[in-house]
Amino acid sequence: MTGDLFSPACPTRQLLDRIGDKWTSMLIKVLAEAHPDEVGFAQLRRRVPGVSHKMLSQTLRSLRRDGLVTRRVEPTVPPRVYYALTDLGMSLDAPLSVVRTWAERHIAAIEQARITFGREHDDG
Amino acid sequence: MTGDLFSPACPTRQLLDRIGDKWTSMLIKVLAEAHPDEVGFAQLRRRVPGVSHKMLSQTLRSLRRDGLVTRRVEPTVPPRVYYALTDLGMSLDAPLSVVRTWAERHIAAIEQARITFGREHDDG
Repeated sequence: MTGDLFSPACPTRQLLDRIGDKWTSMLIKVLAEAHPDEVGFAQLRRRVPGVSHKMLSQTLRSLRRDGLVTRRVEPTVPPRVYYALTDLGMSLDAPLSVVRTWAERHIAAIEQARITFGREHDDG
Repeated sequence: MTGDLFSPACPTRQLLDRIGDKWTSMLIKVLAEAHPDEVGFAQLRRRVPGVSHKMLSQTLRSLRRDGLVTRRVEPTVPPRVYYALTDLGMSLDAPLSVVRTWAERHIAAIEQARITFGREHDDG
């Protein structure tokens, strides 16, 4: 069974928005680079500069829920929490990296287009 | 000059969220299939089932602003508006299609993971 993005009832749509999110993209990259090792929550936060505690927790929970990430709690005091990619999560790294690379490579052209558009349409 | 997604100040982050959006993905696909021909607004709306008039307008404006899409108004009564991909927009089709394909291919496994997660965590 495959999904159909063009069918409004198909859950592929919501999935696409989740995996298209910038935090998801960065987390998958950081976890893929460490794979098959785990990465601690604090380390993930350092490796994804600018992410809030809440946003990181929510994104990781969403990734766990989708079966892309596993979570392990080490019963220390305080407990430490580690995350790792599943095979499914690992298979998402290559597709997302293609889009990341496109964005990084073309951002200058896009910024230039925005300046031109702003000038022509008077909306900065 | 290339962008750096991992730099909080770099506009690549915001760009990634825009191009990761499901409506953007669908519109780029529809416009790429028609390329180099233009597609009218009404036809775009039919080809992207479920998109509202407002969301379609906003997404197209954002794509124009980023230099990915051009717009041409035909001065009929009422005026007709046509859209086409620029070369830059066309270059985004392949990267996005890789992610679309991943999502459509893995949606069943992900839906299954969600059912298992919901059962284990009692949150449906």
